[in-house]
Amino acid sequence: MVALQRPLLAAACLFLCCGVLSSPDPRLREALIQLEASMQTGGRMVLTEAEQRLDALLFEMKQEAVSAAIFPPAVHFFRAKRLIQTSPIFKLLQKMPKGGALHVHDFSMVDVDWLVKNVTYRPNCYMCSTDDPSVRFIFSAQWPKPLARCSPWVLLENLRTKLVNTTDLDNSIRTNLTLFTDEDPEAAFPSQAAVWGRFEQAFLAVWGLVTYAPVFRDYYYQGLTQFHADNVMYLELRALLPQVYELDGSSHDRAWTLKTYQDVTERFVSTHPDFFGARIIVTNQRRATRSAVAAAVEEAMQLKKDFPDFMAGFDLVGQEDRGRPLWYFRDALSLPAEKGVALPYFFHAGETDLEGTDVDQNVLDALLLNTSRIGHGFALVRHPVAKDLSRKRGVAVEVCPISNQVLKLVKDLRNHPAAALMLENHPVVVSSDDPAMFGASGLSYDFYEAFVGFGGIKSHLGSLKQLAMNSLRYSALPPQQQEEALVLWQRRWNQFVTENDPNGTFFRH
Amino acid sequence: MVALQRPLLAAACLFLCCGVLSSPDPRLREALIQLEASMQTGGRMVLTEAEQRLDALLFEMKQEAVSAAIFPPAVHFFRAKRLIQTSPIFKLLQKMPKGGALHVHDFSMVDVDWLVKNVTYRPNCYMCSTDDPSVRFIFSAQWPKPLARCSPWVLLENLRTKLVNTTDLDNSIRTNLTLFTDEDPEAAFPSQAAVWGRFEQAFLAVWGLVTYAPVFRDYYYQGLTQFHADNVMYLELRALLPQVYELDGSSHDRAWTLKTYQDVTERFVSTHPDFFGARIIVTNQRRATRSAVAAAVEEAMQLKKDFPDFMAGFDLVGQEDRGRPLWYFRDALSLPAEKGVALPYFFHAGETDLEGTDVDQNVLDALLLNTSRIGHGFALVRHPVAKDLSRKRGVAVEVCPISNQVLKLVKDLRNHPAAALMLENHPVVVSSDDPAMFGASGLSYDFYEAFVGFGGIKSHLGSLKQLAMNSLRYSALPPQQQEEALVLWQRRWNQFVTENDPNGTFFRH
Ligand SMILES: [Zn+2]
Ligand SMILES: [Zn+2]
Repeated sequence: MVALQRPLLAAACLFLCCGVLSSPDPRLREALIQLEASMQTGGRMVLTEAEQRLDALLFEMKQEAVSAAIFPPAVHFFRAKRLIQTSPIFKLLQKMPKGGALHVHDFSMVDVDWLVKNVTYRPNCYMCSTDDPSVRFIFSAQWPKPLARCSPWVLLENLRTKLVNTTDLDNSIRTNLTLFTDEDPEAAFPSQAAVWGRFEQAFLAVWGLVTYAPVFRDYYYQGLTQFHADNVMYLELRALLPQVYELDGSSHDRAWTLKTYQDVTERFVSTHPDFFGARIIVTNQRRATRSAVAAAVEEAMQLKKDFPDFMAGFDLVGQEDRGRPLWYFRDALSLPAEKGVALPYFFHAGETDLEGTDVDQNVLDALLLNTSRIGHGFALVRHPVAKDLSRKRGVAVEVCPISNQVLKLVKDLRNHPAAALMLENHPVVVSSDDPAMFGASGLSYDFYEAFVGFGGIKSHLGSLKQLAMNSLRYSALPPQQQEEALVLWQRRWNQFVTENDPNGTFFRH
Repeated sequence: MVALQRPLLAAACLFLCCGVLSSPDPRLREALIQLEASMQTGGRMVLTEAEQRLDALLFEMKQEAVSAAIFPPAVHFFRAKRLIQTSPIFKLLQKMPKGGALHVHDFSMVDVDWLVKNVTYRPNCYMCSTDDPSVRFIFSAQWPKPLARCSPWVLLENLRTKLVNTTDLDNSIRTNLTLFTDEDPEAAFPSQAAVWGRFEQAFLAVWGLVTYAPVFRDYYYQGLTQFHADNVMYLELRALLPQVYELDGSSHDRAWTLKTYQDVTERFVSTHPDFFGARIIVTNQRRATRSAVAAAVEEAMQLKKDFPDFMAGFDLVGQEDRGRPLWYFRDALSLPAEKGVALPYFFHAGETDLEGTDVDQNVLDALLLNTSRIGHGFALVRHPVAKDLSRKRGVAVEVCPISNQVLKLVKDLRNHPAAALMLENHPVVVSSDDPAMFGASGLSYDFYEAFVGFGGIKSHLGSLKQLAMNSLRYSALPPQQQEEALVLWQRRWNQFVTENDPNGTFFRH
């Protein structure tokens, strides 16, 4: 945080290059510690006096967290959630303007409670049960046709009128829409296959609800509302662009879906002037065939032409380990460059533990395919050449700590590879991937894990400031809009610092 | 492994510096993959034809391990042990000449079975039980005085004659001498405090057995025998140099203990000409006072003078998180440099998850105090300046994967920070710390975890060769002896390759 004094810096450099020490000099030691501190994310951020006071307060809070019986980043998020909620650091992070959320998926933006309490209480909502066990939903004007491998449809409004109390039903619906559970998460999800299996079931359960046109609009609006309430000012949403359906069974094309995102965004921004907007990264399943991906790329090129300022680019999604490696699709993914069409890529890559396999090669291939950012990049530290490339070209890694923990890439978040990346100020942004699926919401929980877990005692207010600024700097916004967004953010940030200044008039202990 | 062709290397470099790609060139991709592969530990090792054949066999074995239902490095060693034992990779690693074991502690070298079946069956062996519950032992000519907070002494030879079958007794003794258990290790050791508590109890239980002079000699000889049987040719033993006692209760001084190590080593080498020898790193508890450490350093300087070729240097041991940071002892540890006496250091440092605390600073401080190697260095990747320094000065990290997992620094060994270090060919050696305590033995189990867990599919025979060579290059042996040891090792290595060559006459499927 504090700039190194020149003579000390020179001494430190000399030592680093060639020094063998006769006796350890405390000033040299201090210089090296400062040098190391200055290398981390936000390490060279100059803080105002008010920021320094807030930083001192944060430091106290962190020392408390580190010395507590349970250190939340060391345990599974499902167990840690309540501890995090009651922690003063989290409360501060909630209020903090965090900039943009750059890695969030379309149908996991909104607390599942809202789906249960709002959406499933709407008229014409039918549900059936599968053997897995899971549930499926559909909205329909008439009784829907039976679904293969699902029980007969039940009209929820009928069912609920027959029940004395709907708590059990609602709880059981909720359980099917998220991975979050009060049970022992290790027992509930003993393996990656188990947790991904449940993930896909929950995804299919949500699908019938959120692809119904009125819900689709409301869901996205509600998602913006929740991120905005968590002090996020900008969103890049990875969206599958489903064919959204109406009550009569008719459905819209994918351009309609994208247009709807745009309309809802505009409507939201018009009533929330401190929200900067959103962009869509169009996504396609990575388990698809070569020709399907080629078609998706062609379509994405067209959509990018039609929505040049609203669509950010293209990505492939789904479990990397079970999907096809990026290189398998190289011909399809080279189409835009060959045709001279700009289609930015935001590839998920390296969300894997399978060291050295074809899939593990995705981080390098994403860079070879000129990706703008890397989704997760969990495997990046295992690829020194790719890591170097990502740093030199400013290709930010979208780090989603809770997602990686719940999907069993790492247990103790202090061992998350992004901890090392942040200590070297590698370009990173923090995001939440599928917050509703993991029982999180917005960005604050993931900011907590990254700030407290990766940084330990050493990360500070400057790190947080840098992470927020990174989320705009590495966004898909063009430079001019980035500047505008940063101005807006800085205003909110100053207000945040003033309101939480321990010496200020706003502050309450 | 294969040297990069010059034009491709040039293309790769160009790309790394400044390249934005129009269309991904498969040859460039191949060049970058090769470049990355060449950067890892052993990545530039040139393999003979026979080695290449063995490497291909190893690769097949690894693919099998990666595709199995349970990937041993991903689970706790206590569960993985049997899987590892039956794996063909492990059987090959056992036969492989591994060079030196540079991080092993004095009283955890030998399988506890030997303590139970040999040592506790000797005459005059008394045992008592503490409340923890644990046990204590003493050898004595007459009935020993009662021990505080322990049951009355029982003479084991008396007890055993009264028992119909001694299996239960022997099992219960064994349980007290090691952390290894068939129970659920997560339940048995829910926290770092719990596992370190049990570690210290087991250590105290072993103490009374191994500090009895005849056992002391036999234990060390047995330790050398077991490491030698595991195809380790050289040992650097961290030794507390206890005051070893005789049956009449008299005890020897620490110089006697060091001299005994030297005598036994010479005796062992004289009958095992393919064993190169051993050196002692004298250790002291890090929970001691400043004056106690100053006294220990003074004594170590004297011992180094008296045993210049047998004593390697000095270290502080015990749980880092609960001990004092190195910097606290800086005055004592600066004594040798001030007096112009050479006392090499081999500090344990960074065996901690407590990011950013005083203890976490040990890795930098070890380097400032001119350490020759870093014990564990688990926290090194969180210290970019220290990491850089360790690399530039060739200060090797002694990586002990099983120890770090059992002592709860990391659960899935694929996330061990040394994986990243090895992918950058950071100077590392693999060792086993306290194998008997963890239910391991020799070096092969830790080599398995490092080779299969850190390297994934990508590490190969060259990595193993490099690790073995590192263990001699980074040893405390003077250069001339290093060369001799390497010649001896190379002879053994060639024999190993010949005997396991899938095309050779020795090889049996
Ligand atoms: Zn994602
Ligand atoms: Zn150790």
